[in-house]
Amino acid sequence: MPTQFDPPSGTRDFLSAEFEARERVFATIRTVFSRYGFEPLQTPAFERLDVLLGKYGDEGDKLVFKILRRGEHEASGEADLALRYDLTVPLARVMAAYGSQLPSPYKRYAMGPVWRADRPGKGRYREFVQCDLDTLGSSSELADAEIIHAVHDVLSELGIAQFQIQLNSRLVLSGLLDAFGVPPDLGPGVLITLDKLDKLRPEAVAAELEGRGLAPQTAAELVQALAAPDAADRVRAALKPGQSGSAGLDQVDAVMAMVEAQLPAGRITFSPRLVRGLSYYTGPIWEVTSPGVPGSLAGGGRYDHLIEQLGGPDVPATGGSLGIERILLTLPGGAAVQRARLDVAVMVMGEPYVRQSFGFASAARAAGLRASVYLGSSGKLGKQLKWASDQGARWSLIYGGTEHEAGIVTVRDMVSGEQAAVPAADLGAHLSRVAATRGAGAS
Amino acid sequence: MPTQFDPPSGTRDFLSAEFEARERVFATIRTVFSRYGFEPLQTPAFERLDVLLGKYGDEGDKLVFKILRRGEHEASGEADLALRYDLTVPLARVMAAYGSQLPSPYKRYAMGPVWRADRPGKGRYREFVQCDLDTLGSSSELADAEIIHAVHDVLSELGIAQFQIQLNSRLVLSGLLDAFGVPPDLGPGVLITLDKLDKLRPEAVAAELEGRGLAPQTAAELVQALAAPDAADRVRAALKPGQSGSAGLDQVDAVMAMVEAQLPAGRITFSPRLVRGLSYYTGPIWEVTSPGVPGSLAGGGRYDHLIEQLGGPDVPATGGSLGIERILLTLPGGAAVQRARLDVAVMVMGEPYVRQSFGFASAARAAGLRASVYLGSSGKLGKQLKWASDQGARWSLIYGGTEHEAGIVTVRDMVSGEQAAVPAADLGAHLSRVAATRGAGAS
Repeated sequence: MPTQFDPPSGTRDFLSAEFEARERVFATIRTVFSRYGFEPLQTPAFERLDVLLGKYGDEGDKLVFKILRRGEHEASGEADLALRYDLTVPLARVMAAYGSQLPSPYKRYAMGPVWRADRPGKGRYREFVQCDLDTLGSSSELADAEIIHAVHDVLSELGIAQFQIQLNSRLVLSGLLDAFGVPPDLGPGVLITLDKLDKLRPEAVAAELEGRGLAPQTAAELVQALAAPDAADRVRAALKPGQSGSAGLDQVDAVMAMVEAQLPAGRITFSPRLVRGLSYYTGPIWEVTSPGVPGSLAGGGRYDHLIEQLGGPDVPATGGSLGIERILLTLPGGAAVQRARLDVAVMVMGEPYVRQSFGFASAARAAGLRASVYLGSSGKLGKQLKWASDQGARWSLIYGGTEHEAGIVTVRDMVSGEQAAVPAADLGAHLSRVAATRGAGAS
Repeated sequence: MPTQFDPPSGTRDFLSAEFEARERVFATIRTVFSRYGFEPLQTPAFERLDVLLGKYGDEGDKLVFKILRRGEHEASGEADLALRYDLTVPLARVMAAYGSQLPSPYKRYAMGPVWRADRPGKGRYREFVQCDLDTLGSSSELADAEIIHAVHDVLSELGIAQFQIQLNSRLVLSGLLDAFGVPPDLGPGVLITLDKLDKLRPEAVAAELEGRGLAPQTAAELVQALAAPDAADRVRAALKPGQSGSAGLDQVDAVMAMVEAQLPAGRITFSPRLVRGLSYYTGPIWEVTSPGVPGSLAGGGRYDHLIEQLGGPDVPATGGSLGIERILLTLPGGAAVQRARLDVAVMVMGEPYVRQSFGFASAARAAGLRASVYLGSSGKLGKQLKWASDQGARWSLIYGGTEHEAGIVTVRDMVSGEQAAVPAADLGAHLSRVAATRGAGAS
């Protein structure tokens, strides 16, 4: 039940363990993308309202969080700014603003929250992280292949063992519609229906196509070709050289040839059924799925005129998006993340030894360990050890009157309960040594 | 001159080099704080309006970015959400929401953008990063000392060589006002004026104190004591044991004793003149300054009742804030950051060798290098090498008909112009070797 102290509907607080788990994923992504020579780009959380509105269709516009004007204008009830809805419109603005100063092609990644006033639901948030990778200014299939390769490397390095890349081209799809005699004005609707071949039975898809005005025989032939196990071969046979769709096949083959040798066998396949919903794609398109995971882990394609439509210059462009929130749910051990534990807890055995306790924590940190002194008010060792244990501390350090006189620190192994008397001056070296053998250390 | 493509007033786009420089600083901060056992906390960009309003005074409330209601409620012109204005009010909400599940004491850091509709100016932004470190639930001076120590370590690790920590206590200040016979109702105003002793001449401060209603002799004595080079000694003498201010001196001495031994000599000093503007401090207060840098790099103190006033539980609390944007401006070499360079650029010498070029880039990445194939349309080697040089590539790889027949790759050193013929199968090992000797490698 939501309380007045919950974060706003559709948003989340990330505490220790969850934050660290997400941050590790983000760091891996940044490392891989940077290895490919992609540059980071970070734009503000909000844009001017006119930059955003009209870019996402009527339905999208309704989901934009608008920011009220301020000061004397607040009473007008008007908005002048809005939270970003995706990372692509800001990219178009950046291309328009800094295009000539950017390298060409401009290979950039962006990763950060976007905001959509969608109805919150299971796995659907109003504040969520998007991660986009795009190459602007290259019409070569090398650019398409490079995006796919980088996305593949990210998923592999994140430890996702099983995933499949489906590859197609928008030109294959439009050529296919030509080859089967689909009237051009029915094309977009037919594609939307064909996209359902993975979910609906072939007859249901054919019926829906007829509902869109397609001749029954054409609908049946189209569905038969695409639903068949050997759909790829049938489509290749249908798209004759010289016809419009064969340029699409060339794209698919070119991308496949570049990527295939770098990936495990069978990981990428030509999937003529792949449509991808968005109408702006103009060339190769692809999607990454994983068995047992609904929807896709990543997807993208070439969108040669979109940047111009969004207010930027007319540059060829190709890119992809990682479904970060879904990937985070999929990760092995994702649910079992633990609060980061202390390596070393330092007991505070009364006023005269406080200064030394502080110094011992410092020595432990210098040895690369996560260390904290006890900050509570109890002078009882038992209570302090209980706190150390609650923090998951691997070792506790005790320094009271006895230790002080002997010039030693008692190092208590919190797992075995064994205690060692370590000369105070050797503490750092001792902790380095035991930490190296036990695999501890702040990460 | 701002154009329609600039980011909104008071916000910034962070492109490659600047983003990387900032990210490095953030990473250092996270590492140091985590080494002390502080946990990260990330809250949403926006909060419910009622959580934020009324917490920052009338002036602050005016600077809050409010978010318009959506759907049918949009026309009302009302707001229901607002962008966070700082990281402390969200912390109070989190304490109220998850208090019992959090460790006690709760040591957390938060780092992220906040938004304020201030008039933008040099170094003043409407979207800027705040970084807070706080310990909730401990009234021990160990907690105060630990915060100062952690902030010290961050600044040191960031490479800021010269900085000073001024330490005082609010109890010293209130005891001082008592000792000099300042009427209690004048106290807060007197402190605000005394805070100007670093900027104004002593006589000007005394005059302002008189303007606040302080007796001329009291004003003169107070200023004389605090402006003197031996102010610390004078204040110690004025605060007699048993009087209210001596508890403040005990706090200062306790914190000093814990921290001093860990820091370079003279880095932390008792500064009875230090006031810090905010009225909510209740115990030790501190500030970090650096010669030649206006304002402070960090500051903080104990604020035992603030969390309750902000809607959370009544817990003792102490914390600090890093002036991240100012620190970023101060950093050595901060202005000279370069776009991240490629280590390896792979030329594409015509259709038959595209697949191999793609593979060579992959081999370079596997060797830990930042590598990209040429994505442009020119088949001319000269043009491709020009691109490689523009990207700052350390090496270019060339693989055309000649190399193909000989089974080698030409590795061109872009600095010396020397070329080496490397067997294609040995490329990865070769690149690892040369990179190790030249210090290249994706970071």
